Amino acid sequence: MSNPALDSGTSGVKKVLGYAAVEKGGKLLPFVFDRRPTQPRDVVFRILYCGICHSDLHQIRDEWSDDVPAQYPIVPGHEMTGIVCDVGDEVTRFKIGNRVGVGCLVNSCGKCSHCKRNLEQYCEEKPIWTYNDKDIYTDNLPTYGGFSTLMVAPERFVIKIPDGLPMDGAAPLLCAGITVYSPMMHYKMQQGGKHFGVVGLGGLGFMAAKFARAMGMQVTVISSSPDKELEARACLRADDFIVSSDLKRMKKAEKTLDFIIDTVSAPHSFDKYLPLLRTNGQMVLVGMPHKPLTVSSMLLAAGRRSVAGSMIGGLKETQEMMDFCGKHHIFCLVERIPMDYVNNAMVRLHNSDVKYRFVIDCKTIKNPTAIYGCH
Amino acid sequence: MSNPALDSGTSGVKKVLGYAAVEKGGKLLPFVFDRRPTQPRDVVFRILYCGICHSDLHQIRDEWSDDVPAQYPIVPGHEMTGIVCDVGDEVTRFKIGNRVGVGCLVNSCGKCSHCKRNLEQYCEEKPIWTYNDKDIYTDNLPTYGGFSTLMVAPERFVIKIPDGLPMDGAAPLLCAGITVYSPMMHYKMQQGGKHFGVVGLGGLGFMAAKFARAMGMQVTVISSSPDKELEARACLRADDFIVSSDLKRMKKAEKTLDFIIDTVSAPHSFDKYLPLLRTNGQMVLVGMPHKPLTVSSMLLAAGRRSVAGSMIGGLKETQEMMDFCGKHHIFCLVERIPMDYVNNAMVRLHNSDVKYRFVIDCKTIKNPTAIYGCH
Repeated sequence: MSNPALDSGTSGVKKVLGYAAVEKGGKLLPFVFDRRPTQPRDVVFRILYCGICHSDLHQIRDEWSDDVPAQYPIVPGHEMTGIVCDVGDEVTRFKIGNRVGVGCLVNSCGKCSHCKRNLEQYCEEKPIWTYNDKDIYTDNLPTYGGFSTLMVAPERFVIKIPDGLPMDGAAPLLCAGITVYSPMMHYKMQQGGKHFGVVGLGGLGFMAAKFARAMGMQVTVISSSPDKELEARACLRADDFIVSSDLKRMKKAEKTLDFIIDTVSAPHSFDKYLPLLRTNGQMVLVGMPHKPLTVSSMLLAAGRRSVAGSMIGGLKETQEMMDFCGKHHIFCLVERIPMDYVNNAMVRLHNSDVKYRFVIDCKTIKNPTAIYGCH
Repeated sequence: MSNPALDSGTSGVKKVLGYAAVEKGGKLLPFVFDRRPTQPRDVVFRILYCGICHSDLHQIRDEWSDDVPAQYPIVPGHEMTGIVCDVGDEVTRFKIGNRVGVGCLVNSCGKCSHCKRNLEQYCEEKPIWTYNDKDIYTDNLPTYGGFSTLMVAPERFVIKIPDGLPMDGAAPLLCAGITVYSPMMHYKMQQGGKHFGVVGLGGLGFMAAKFARAMGMQVTVISSSPDKELEARACLRADDFIVSSDLKRMKKAEKTLDFIIDTVSAPHSFDKYLPLLRTNGQMVLVGMPHKPLTVSSMLLAAGRRSVAGSMIGGLKETQEMMDFCGKHHIFCLVERIPMDYVNNAMVRLHNSDVKYRFVIDCKTIKNPTAIYGCH
């Protein structure tokens, strides 16, 4: 299928088709915008697939207005894979035709102590987010995400996709994957032999359970939906499954887990799950509820427990995660959708009605009726 | 001063004088009770001093009713020092005349994996608390605390007080001291060279600042009271002092601390202090607010921060802490009070009007009008 925008993958200014939210809570609509001329260290790729993350929903609804206010128009999407179609003169790791991906970050200062320690997500100057941001290190223009046809990013922020992985199932690894992999490594869960709990079986929970198995842990899935038991056991080979409203089972499971990854993105309390942790147990929140969570001092103190947050991972670790996935043949089970289904998908995502991640087939993006544009 | 009860430190049943709360929120009143005949592994000591901990106040007011409901009459006090006056036949580490102390625990199963790892406070069978509990491992009778004249405890739960420490100033080490020392060791704060923050400058905060200096950290005290600055700098040699309501100073201090010990026992939010932490920063709550705290996912995620709880320490670590205090000549600054001032002290403690710990001179306990008793 020929598409004018897809044909502009040259070194000059690139006219790109995408879908954007243009106002708070509004629907995503066709949108035309420019991406910069290829810089010496830039990699340009045609986007094949882009996952839909719960944070896309938070962001277009401006639910994080206190921390990262929405700046419309927003082209969401920070889990994209594609094929390289242009590279700058100084690019060394990629060439045309390579399978690549971009996650949540597209730039950082590169000079601060965090960047030097491969923690670009905590860049002291400022990390540049893949959308709803402005790239102060290049053209100072708004960043637009992967709900579009073509991407430009500095080589340092581009990830190689191992040959064995499907390009659609690999896309969510770039956000959901690294979001759970990074804290699992940081808190040394890869040592094996531990008992791991994952709360919530959406995109993040699916990845967490997969990694936990590959890391040699015993896995318990805790979910509010009884109908996820079969999937948890059959598809993810979870050792145990607990419905969180089953107080008897929850009581019985007290003090049995070494780690919990909490993937719930709706406001909730840590107190429901903390009793499940053993002494020195660690709970990591990777969902991003837009309201503060509650936690009782007693439940923290009794068992020297802790709750932590974590935000994606650095680029080096993201590549390590991707290679780990290649080695263990881990990828996300996805529901592939055409671009014009995205607004339906958002409603279903809000209702947790997806197994396990929507991935937009970006080759389906067409623009007969684009009414917004910044070109 | 002669006191009949103090003279009963023999091997038989001991008639002991104390002060007890007999109803929720009620005043502490003279109270007579028995302590058990000396068992082969028991150490008996005349109590010289007993500190007043904020948790004594929580407990007699039954503010932790969901977790540890008050069982009146309650003789509070779990920071006591004294002189050994009797030992059982199998006691090896103590003899009559030794300077000793007892903290929050008086027994545990001794057999579970936690007890075997010197984590008696997390005993899987059940740790026995110094008061408001029942010693299921010995006589199955209620436990009564240090607001009294004589103590009986198994050797394993008795701590040696180093010669160089004052007996009144050492008493609060047995709860306030170990409460902050244990998480500081657990989170490896003793490595030195880090920047340490302590929130609240009461009994716990005072100890935390003292330990932090001895461990070679830079110390910032954060307090709601501007008038504590002089004390913090002069008495505790803190490097910096921030009034928590000074938003400009709080803003300037963002991302400067590696660790925070939060000693606030009133309900509050972690969100006020989390921004002060650097990447990977660790905040440990050692106060025990009786209502859940709030914490925002963004503040945890941004900087991979964590919040943890901690509960006193095991007996081995408590002795290590006491020896550390002996070596560094660390003890608590106390306001020594006679027993009959205790109800006034409780009111002042509630108003944070004490520097830094009330310590009851238990030699002042008299019982001309005791109307309650279980003998």
